[in-house]
Amino acid sequence: MIKVNIHITLKEGVLDPQGKAIEGSLNTLGYQGVEDVRVGKLIEMTFSDSEQVTEQVEQMCQKLLANPVIENYSYTIEEGVVQ
Amino acid sequence: MIKVNIHITLKEGVLDPQGKAIEGSLNTLGYQGVEDVRVGKLIEMTFSDSEQVTEQVEQMCQKLLANPVIENYSYTIEEGVVQ
Repeated sequence: MIKVNIHITLKEGVLDPQGKAIEGSLNTLGYQGVEDVRVGKLIEMTFSDSEQVTEQVEQMCQKLLANPVIENYSYTIEEGVVQ
Repeated sequence: MIKVNIHITLKEGVLDPQGKAIEGSLNTLGYQGVEDVRVGKLIEMTFSDSEQVTEQVEQMCQKLLANPVIENYSYTIEEGVVQ
């Protein structure tokens, strides 16, 4: 069993309205020190077989999970997770 | 400048329709080994002052960022980030 965590974030310079909304709300709630809030996605999945996991994850991010025009992605692969 | 990364994930047992949809799409695309896809949120923010950051982040998660009934949260705090 292999566990993969994928982080998808908006590229710098791309407007993030959800982040701006959270920043505004936090400032309204009294957290004045908060700046530059950005919201991304965190996708966790498990693989039942261990062949070519890195290649598959890379392809998935390019094809389906991220939009490479406006988003960056990174991933971590934990091998040998026993569940 | 302090950088904080917050991970918000659905608790185990809570239905994740977005994750199920991604899992279905990946299987349709031919990635048969993928199981148990879960989608969460990743919130990045910076703090301009360094006082009581941990307490503030904990409060923010409880009050605004996560729904503690159905979501778990965790965070990492990187001190002394120069930008």
